[in-house]
Amino acid sequence: MPKVSNKGKQMPESPIRKLVPYADIAKKKGNKVYHLNIGQPDIKTPEVALNAVKNADIKVLEYSHSAGFESYRTKLSQYYKSHGLPIDVQDIIITTGGSEALLFAMGSTMDVDDEIIIPEPFYANYNGFSTASGVKVVPVISTIDDGFALPPITAFEKLITSKTKAILICNPGNPTGYLYSKEEIQQLAEIVKKHDLFLIADEVYREFIYDENDKHYSVMNVPGIKENAIMIDSVSKRYSMCGARIGCIVSKNKELMATAMKFAQARLSPPTFAQIASEAALETPQSYFTEVIEEYKERRDTLVSELNKIEGVKVATPKGAFYCIAQLPVKNADDFAQWLLESYDNNGETVMIAPAAGFYSTPNVGLNEVRIAYVLKKEDLVRSVQILKDALRVYNAK
Amino acid sequence: MPKVSNKGKQMPESPIRKLVPYADIAKKKGNKVYHLNIGQPDIKTPEVALNAVKNADIKVLEYSHSAGFESYRTKLSQYYKSHGLPIDVQDIIITTGGSEALLFAMGSTMDVDDEIIIPEPFYANYNGFSTASGVKVVPVISTIDDGFALPPITAFEKLITSKTKAILICNPGNPTGYLYSKEEIQQLAEIVKKHDLFLIADEVYREFIYDENDKHYSVMNVPGIKENAIMIDSVSKRYSMCGARIGCIVSKNKELMATAMKFAQARLSPPTFAQIASEAALETPQSYFTEVIEEYKERRDTLVSELNKIEGVKVATPKGAFYCIAQLPVKNADDFAQWLLESYDNNGETVMIAPAAGFYSTPNVGLNEVRIAYVLKKEDLVRSVQILKDALRVYNAK
Ligand SMILES: Cc1ncc(COP(=O)(O)O)c(C=O)c1O
Ligand SMILES: Cc1ncc(COP(=O)(O)O)c(C=O)c1O
Repeated sequence: MPKVSNKGKQMPESPIRKLVPYADIAKKKGNKVYHLNIGQPDIKTPEVALNAVKNADIKVLEYSHSAGFESYRTKLSQYYKSHGLPIDVQDIIITTGGSEALLFAMGSTMDVDDEIIIPEPFYANYNGFSTASGVKVVPVISTIDDGFALPPITAFEKLITSKTKAILICNPGNPTGYLYSKEEIQQLAEIVKKHDLFLIADEVYREFIYDENDKHYSVMNVPGIKENAIMIDSVSKRYSMCGARIGCIVSKNKELMATAMKFAQARLSPPTFAQIASEAALETPQSYFTEVIEEYKERRDTLVSELNKIEGVKVATPKGAFYCIAQLPVKNADDFAQWLLESYDNNGETVMIAPAAGFYSTPNVGLNEVRIAYVLKKEDLVRSVQILKDALRVYNAK
Repeated sequence: MPKVSNKGKQMPESPIRKLVPYADIAKKKGNKVYHLNIGQPDIKTPEVALNAVKNADIKVLEYSHSAGFESYRTKLSQYYKSHGLPIDVQDIIITTGGSEALLFAMGSTMDVDDEIIIPEPFYANYNGFSTASGVKVVPVISTIDDGFALPPITAFEKLITSKTKAILICNPGNPTGYLYSKEEIQQLAEIVKKHDLFLIADEVYREFIYDENDKHYSVMNVPGIKENAIMIDSVSKRYSMCGARIGCIVSKNKELMATAMKFAQARLSPPTFAQIASEAALETPQSYFTEVIEEYKERRDTLVSELNKIEGVKVATPKGAFYCIAQLPVKNADDFAQWLLESYDNNGETVMIAPAAGFYSTPNVGLNEVRIAYVLKKEDLVRSVQILKDALRVYNAK
């Protein structure tokens, strides 16, 4: 019998999805499950995007240019410029989700056994893309006690070897909700310049920032790192259009873009319907975003204040994105999350949470932490935290 | 300045697209270019597929299951069964084009420096996916003199090493149009069984077979190689829906499918609009295919008979797909193809052809061959070959 690859064996299972069978059990028992575990927003997709697809007059659904529609890239460049990001058409390749942009970024910058430094906890699929690319993730730990601030520069410099090719950050962060300050980004810029590394910034949550005094600082705005900076973007969260599967890789480094383009050509083109939707989505009125951000801000405030009422729970208030990490008064959040689905209910209801260990690549870190996504409406969040509180009591009394 | 990866440097440029700048020059001069170089059919997409997207009532464009809609997989399994392929729901993972299915197949079966044997000439992007996966392509040459028949088994066995993990075939073949006989497939089955290899069959052109006595023989129908067989499929050509970006990887090998699923989870999901279209496309009436196949058959016959009228041109009549390889009376087809765009026109018209060297991985093979796609209507094919004939005369008289 032929054998699967070692790489395939090492590919991580999604920490978010591995509890799915237990959720199915809970649902089969007739229990309602509040999904705090996934980043699938319940926010409506802008109608202008959906209507564009409805109204498209397509006779032959053709491949597009491998870099995406030229019309879309042109408008996207204008969109970025109007948001203060100096991005030209030729700096953009449209990808199948931010996911594919990450894969292209890794493939274009790293060879097998090369190293990428990532502050952890981090978006779990960075592990998957790294494994698929044969690249080693070198984590630098940020902790809930510091609110997940960037570790000191010395912590990075200690980790840099001749194999290090890039630093990858997520800003604002999934799963932490942390927003890097201008100073932190500038520190990273110094390191990548000094050591000739790429700085890959996953900015798919750029708009989701909740405090008036906070401002997103993009890698595309940092002076002096034109050749180092790679931005990852996506329409998934911005327009609640996760199913479109459209994102992009952005860089001013021409050699890097020419290289990424070869990966793009091999897979022919990004999806056509979704590009039509994404191009139209650029016309989404500002009022849509104002409402959405306001809604998320309220959800965040609700979630954090409710969580803070539970004894023994610690939470780092997220400044952006729509996740937070909470430390729970349990030894093993994995076991607790499974128990919530398998053995517990509160009046026929329970919650599904994502154990945070899967967001760390250092073993045995974050074992008592979970990631909670606030993509549900406020009442449901309040009810979910109520359930969580009761469940912790029952679980710890076992 | 940071450096791109060696892998990125080694990624091949698309042999089909690298002449694009010269085509742009031709067009800027006002010349009409007949595109014989690309596999983008001009055939209409079935209305049932397009209408399903128009009529879909979507509020939130969500991620789908990483393996694709369950409803789609269920109907797809029924579709395969009704076409004589014993494929169950759990044997299918929906992918972003056959392209992604190929990537998942390679990632799941091969590690860096492993080897994959591919009869050449082959679909050029096999090179790209292999390079992206760090895998070495070991070509086994099939020649125009044998009509691109499978080389003898001994030719394969000579190439098998401890690093060999799979044999990849394209059936019917792009760029050759060759259709493997049942006997040839059975011979391959014997080899993969004997040496514990995977047999990956790219069957995206399965329907496109033009002679009454010819029948497609799928790897999924071969007894005794359940654990070895992996089928790659796509809606791109079947429904002239290349821009959808939907395909699938199919196998009865459970470990393989569980492994591929981890790659699928990392990239979250295939595109949602396109899955709606693809699911609906399964309702396409048989009359659509009858017409399309009849049309392609006439195009093939027209193309081949016209080409055969040119002295010094040799062509292996394709039995399937919609490409053929033609040997031209030139030394360097690359130079000729560029010249056609840059320096030649016939009453303001010229043709774009794909130099075949890019479809071989052995250097300096196929230098006087081109791939011609018959995706244009008959009049245009006749006119294109007329142009080609005149151009060869002018070029060789230079
Ligand atoms: C931090 C981060 N990056 C990238 C992605 C990938 O998103 P997509 O491929 O839908 O653009 C996600 C999705 O959840 C994410 O959270
Ligand atoms: C032989 C072959 N395999 C796979 C593909 C990939 O097609 P897609 O990704 O559109 O399904 C193509 C496209 O031309 C092809 O010719």
